[in-house]
Amino acid sequence: MSAKLNHLAAWHHESDRIWTQQIAASLKHYAAPALRTQPKQFRSVGLIFFNPSLRTRTSMEVAAARLGAHVTTIVPGSGVWGFEWNEGQVMDGKAAEHVHEAFGVLSRYYDTLGVRVFASGTDYAKDREDALLHQVIRASTVPVISLESAFYHPCQALADAATLHQHFDKDVVGKKFVLAWGYHPKALPMAVPNSALLMASRLGMQVTVARPNGFELDPEVISTAAGYAKQHGQELTESDNLDEACKDADVIYVKAWGGRLRYQNHRAEQELRDRHKDWRLGVQQLGHAAFMHCLPVRRGVVVDEDVLYAPGAIHLLQAEFRLYAQMAILERAWT
Amino acid sequence: MSAKLNHLAAWHHESDRIWTQQIAASLKHYAAPALRTQPKQFRSVGLIFFNPSLRTRTSMEVAAARLGAHVTTIVPGSGVWGFEWNEGQVMDGKAAEHVHEAFGVLSRYYDTLGVRVFASGTDYAKDREDALLHQVIRASTVPVISLESAFYHPCQALADAATLHQHFDKDVVGKKFVLAWGYHPKALPMAVPNSALLMASRLGMQVTVARPNGFELDPEVISTAAGYAKQHGQELTESDNLDEACKDADVIYVKAWGGRLRYQNHRAEQELRDRHKDWRLGVQQLGHAAFMHCLPVRRGVVVDEDVLYAPGAIHLLQAEFRLYAQMAILERAWT
Amino acid sequence: MSAKLNHLAAWHHESDRIWTQQIAASLKHYAAPALRTQPKQFRSVGLIFFNPSLRTRTSMEVAAARLGAHVTTIVPGSGVWGFEWNEGQVMDGKAAEHVHEAFGVLSRYYDTLGVRVFASGTDYAKDREDALLHQVIRASTVPVISLESAFYHPCQALADAATLHQHFDKDVVGKKFVLAWGYHPKALPMAVPNSALLMASRLGMQVTVARPNGFELDPEVISTAAGYAKQHGQELTESDNLDEACKDADVIYVKAWGGRLRYQNHRAEQELRDRHKDWRLGVQQLGHAAFMHCLPVRRGVVVDEDVLYAPGAIHLLQAEFRLYAQMAILERAWT
Repeated sequence: MSAKLNHLAAWHHESDRIWTQQIAASLKHYAAPALRTQPKQFRSVGLIFFNPSLRTRTSMEVAAARLGAHVTTIVPGSGVWGFEWNEGQVMDGKAAEHVHEAFGVLSRYYDTLGVRVFASGTDYAKDREDALLHQVIRASTVPVISLESAFYHPCQALADAATLHQHFDKDVVGKKFVLAWGYHPKALPMAVPNSALLMASRLGMQVTVARPNGFELDPEVISTAAGYAKQHGQELTESDNLDEACKDADVIYVKAWGGRLRYQNHRAEQELRDRHKDWRLGVQQLGHAAFMHCLPVRRGVVVDEDVLYAPGAIHLLQAEFRLYAQMAILERAWT
Repeated sequence: MSAKLNHLAAWHHESDRIWTQQIAASLKHYAAPALRTQPKQFRSVGLIFFNPSLRTRTSMEVAAARLGAHVTTIVPGSGVWGFEWNEGQVMDGKAAEHVHEAFGVLSRYYDTLGVRVFASGTDYAKDREDALLHQVIRASTVPVISLESAFYHPCQALADAATLHQHFDKDVVGKKFVLAWGYHPKALPMAVPNSALLMASRLGMQVTVARPNGFELDPEVISTAAGYAKQHGQELTESDNLDEACKDADVIYVKAWGGRLRYQNHRAEQELRDRHKDWRLGVQQLGHAAFMHCLPVRRGVVVDEDVLYAPGAIHLLQAEFRLYAQMAILERAWT
Repeated sequence: MSAKLNHLAAWHHESDRIWTQQIAASLKHYAAPALRTQPKQFRSVGLIFFNPSLRTRTSMEVAAARLGAHVTTIVPGSGVWGFEWNEGQVMDGKAAEHVHEAFGVLSRYYDTLGVRVFASGTDYAKDREDALLHQVIRASTVPVISLESAFYHPCQALADAATLHQHFDKDVVGKKFVLAWGYHPKALPMAVPNSALLMASRLGMQVTVARPNGFELDPEVISTAAGYAKQHGQELTESDNLDEACKDADVIYVKAWGGRLRYQNHRAEQELRDRHKDWRLGVQQLGHAAFMHCLPVRRGVVVDEDVLYAPGAIHLLQAEFRLYAQMAILERAWT
């Protein structure tokens, strides 16, 4: 065994040709063209999280594994260096590799990639168009699944749609869906509320966005959602009064997000947000409605703790549907 | 391919209904009730380490994989946020998610969970009753395997019992087992010595606990172990003299742990412990006895280095039995 | 279920003997001798990265998974404690475990280990003989694959050889291979250039090493490579002029590395290196040659950005061959 060890560890010290003969023979067997024309019996999925995750990572890993695929989860900065995003940049700083090379390489190992890359919080135009995600897509030659980008969270929205279908036994059209802002100590991204709003409108629900003034969602997202609503004869409304908005709700979807003001003035947005520390859903506002939240949720901050134990709380079912939604997305990517 | 990429990354931009039709069809296929009534062909195991691990993580991963299961290892704080443990807590600090939601969700992805959560070191009553582990168990709806809790390390103890059975060819009753304290610069938890003591007494061994005064184990653990010993006609003894305790030993199990004093006065415990820097097993005390240690072990601090190379050293065999013990535990959890 | 949970979590609290009977029965089934004499149907690979990695980790994971093996990736310091390397060391510092125990244990869980351990940068004699890697090999009882050591990167070199064979349709003998130094803000290790030099010489290529004075590679490596070259009737040359060296090149392999001066005087080496900030391959020097780089590469620092988009750039193909090379190496380790 020891001879083999040394051979593998330092094969180029040897003067014989075993390596070219034996290993090269195997190499030929495994080489690219052969593998690529074979029918797919083996799938590999690479998940790259530029931002932390619990649900998305674990549900994606189990989804892929259930479908028979191998999964690698990569967290840049933890055992892997940081990446450069910009073209034309002299890379004399911390980043050791450019996204273009990194995803070019990963595309050659994995059949499918999943990428989480949050909003910059500093450049609204860039965040709106999901600039970083699209850079990853351009650098990749295999399907890329968004695991939450600057502006959208499609896996969440698909799971949410399926949860609503299940909860209302498919009878969702015309049901009142309230997307309710919640207070949070940080200026969280808008990806989840954007996707939830578009999803609910598209399902034909009667949607109300309840948020303090200054926390309006993107006008284009609002107008796209309003268009979906109209197609179902529904109306999209906005309100800065949580109590009123929640009246007669069938489902209340709570989510914290930062105001767009943060792109101009971080501190001013923080002050504006802090004025709404008491904007928090309680069981009296929830009433008999279903309660949804994408999680993680800060108890006593974003919602009252007892909301999570209310009979209408379906946030864990919602999390469970992430698994099924992502199995469906992977299956779609592979067919 | 590019059309598909964009579709997956931003499907809600599209006005068509492909997603509701095609993906929803797949979703239905994968949805919960269907999967749950299926015979189990796929198992997933989630391992959550609130404290670091080498042996437990790797042996658990290989154990699960050998049984055909998929494993995810999660280290909160490394790519995953920290968790809140207390009920009724306003979560305006660092923790982004409550253990109740986290394990509620993980229970929906994984068939079995493994959790390592060490002693607080500050609240003895809470540590004694394994309060944190029991919170995880309450929040989970699938079997939870302790990967070392505040007060016990059952996977280790089961592996240790199997190691002793193998080493003594099942003839363990009445053999002299010395649980020997070792010096360590930190006040380590008592989980391993507690479990080792109960395990050896239960196997009917003649057990001696050798530790400096001030490093007594929990009185209830001692008395439970004494009860086990009595059932086999054995006696449990304690000693503050390492040399004497080791005489005629068949096996010496070394482990460092902190004194209970640390719960009242951290610094006083440190001073008391530092007075015993020379309490360290050497080959002359070991004699012909077997040497066990759960690892990791600090050489020249907890034991002399040459003890690890002694003919009686079976600490690597002990580590190997972790794998088999955990395969057995997983199998038990699944049947 | 709850009874089972408690049983698994705290089985030693119970007075019954279920655990000795039932679990011990399973244990016997899984125990070492039985498993070890079975034909290998299950393979496990443990990858330990003492230094960060993207390509090596992911290509190794996919290589092992494609061959049906389970893989664990371990990054000491991230959820795992640090290790001590020296024998005879009193371990009263940060390291909680010695490499000897760690790899002794891992050898009992994994069929094959992969280890990345970079140069110390402080002790040239130790780095030259790959002292740390050989300590790992001594402590392990299963094959160890170097995932880049202090002085060599055999997985890279094997992939590079296969890439060259593919690119030149096996007609590599006599082709001009330039190993070109590149500027980098850090004193990078010499493992890749050492392995690339030996590899190309061994393939019978006409090799030129282009580097500033003060950045000579190890004399013994140079002389071994010269010996290989001679066997093919080729000559190994060195040059301190990048433009001249690149003339009529068939392939230019760029890599940054630190001068040996850093072992004596870190700051002096930095100053010497910084004098060559403009030593950087551009498209005019590349001409029609193929461009290779092991990646990661700093754009605008090590090479001009447009070199990466040149028609001759085969660095992504090179990365892809890592996968096939490592599948071949694993296959070799298992037969």
